[in-house]
Amino acid sequence: MQTEVDLLVLPEEKLRQKGIVLPEPPKPIGTYLPAVRSGNILFVSGMIPKIAGQPSSPKGKVGRDLTSQEGYDAARLCVLNALAAAKMELGGLDRISRVVKVVGYVASAEGFADQPLVINGASDLLVDVFGEKGKHARVSVGVAELPGNVPVEVEVTFEIKGSETGADIEADHVQENLLKEAEQKTSARRRSRGPYRKAAV
Amino acid sequence: MQTEVDLLVLPEEKLRQKGIVLPEPPKPIGTYLPAVRSGNILFVSGMIPKIAGQPSSPKGKVGRDLTSQEGYDAARLCVLNALAAAKMELGGLDRISRVVKVVGYVASAEGFADQPLVINGASDLLVDVFGEKGKHARVSVGVAELPGNVPVEVEVTFEIKGSETGADIEADHVQENLLKEAEQKTSARRRSRGPYRKAAV
Amino acid sequence: MQTEVDLLVLPEEKLRQKGIVLPEPPKPIGTYLPAVRSGNILFVSGMIPKIAGQPSSPKGKVGRDLTSQEGYDAARLCVLNALAAAKMELGGLDRISRVVKVVGYVASAEGFADQPLVINGASDLLVDVFGEKGKHARVSVGVAELPGNVPVEVEVTFEIKGSETGADIEADHVQENLLKEAEQKTSARRRSRGPYRKAAV
Repeated sequence: MQTEVDLLVLPEEKLRQKGIVLPEPPKPIGTYLPAVRSGNILFVSGMIPKIAGQPSSPKGKVGRDLTSQEGYDAARLCVLNALAAAKMELGGLDRISRVVKVVGYVASAEGFADQPLVINGASDLLVDVFGEKGKHARVSVGVAELPGNVPVEVEVTFEIKGSETGADIEADHVQENLLKEAEQKTSARRRSRGPYRKAAV
Repeated sequence: MQTEVDLLVLPEEKLRQKGIVLPEPPKPIGTYLPAVRSGNILFVSGMIPKIAGQPSSPKGKVGRDLTSQEGYDAARLCVLNALAAAKMELGGLDRISRVVKVVGYVASAEGFADQPLVINGASDLLVDVFGEKGKHARVSVGVAELPGNVPVEVEVTFEIKGSETGADIEADHVQENLLKEAEQKTSARRRSRGPYRKAAV
Repeated sequence: MQTEVDLLVLPEEKLRQKGIVLPEPPKPIGTYLPAVRSGNILFVSGMIPKIAGQPSSPKGKVGRDLTSQEGYDAARLCVLNALAAAKMELGGLDRISRVVKVVGYVASAEGFADQPLVINGASDLLVDVFGEKGKHARVSVGVAELPGNVPVEVEVTFEIKGSETGADIEADHVQENLLKEAEQKTSARRRSRGPYRKAAV
């Protein structure tokens, strides 16, 4: 249940509340970048469910080697990588004004048709972290093969807060201060929560 | 044949001329949205050829379960859904200044290589409705599987008229008035046309 | 090895240095365009490795009908077409301020998982031509089928230099003059290079 106060909680505080620690952003294997900013849009590279030092997602095709639920968990891991890449590029997730688009590619066994259930793993985490601003346009398709035989690849596009003008920067600071206040109040109020269960990512 | 007057006809009037009634915008099954606006770009979610209360497209793969022509018709249905989503988000299609991009995913049987013929069903409808402004950059690929075993999924990106400044809004109003005048003249001139044949959507 | 002076060399001069002649931009087979500009973004249509008057890439699926290296070469050809389309739309590649995104679709045999190695053919050429500004966000996936049974399709998105205001245009001119000076110095210094080997494209 999302309360009005929740909407004011900063994304990184949301992650802390849920016990989620962002991984190291994945290193590109080629002459490309984890994320590129153009104007107010941050284009993040397609991310796979592979996180150094964490148990990987099973490999293969959803509907044959993985269940939809395992695919959902893998899509969630992809978004953790996308958030890590965005944070590295921007300095902090609080620079994000909204999630714009998600394209989810599901390596699909013949006849598997529940790609949306799999990509909900990406969408749900984004909404967990950004609230209403986490909702996005979405494309879900079933592809033949994915790099390294992973079951899911997710591309996330973010909108970032404008800071071209002094006025914008000032407005951002005011907003950030308001948010920090709200955050402190929330922190004081909220009861402690259990640790983040890795298997449920 | 497109005349100069046609170019001035508003998109929604074009739909009426062709007897096309936009469907209810499809409801997302997940924590995402039918369309998201960022700046002057409207990102519409991937749309499938399923319209409530209308005969659905056949399911399966093009080149095995559907002909290219049936795929073409399905791609057209996808765009109707995209237009419905855009209209819901913007209030009216007249806010669209141009179509920017179409990505067409065709569920393809082994060896099927005519994805462009299928996605022409999307492109042709957009040009029917928006004229020259309906032409777009395009990507057509053949995927393994699609949600609910539909044969085609289409993602459309629109550019919308800027309205950040009073000057822009004023210019829009002047243009709209000009367009309405042109429209009235066109309506007066044009002969009545037959009803829109559903099967040909 | 990239020197500081190299970074100042204009993209079209870089192509000349490498003996690369851009092909005729491919003609769309349908009611779409090779490239569409919206704001500062240039969206180029998905390009295939087919260039009039040049030996085509082998057809089929990478991992069965083509090796990864042949796929790499095909991805490079796709980017040549994308550059040709961008040049036609913009008048010259020097209007490009950076490469924003590459989406690479690899027609993949069952079990083929080296899509990134194939799409490196696209990424490497972009970095060859644009230097650091050629690095981009990237998505690589393995699809079932592609138009005309080509092995690779590549979609490139560019950022173009803003020229909405007089100040921007002036700044561009200053920069162009600086670049031309640097170019002349480079031309004088560099030793002649061998002709561009077609097979290595």
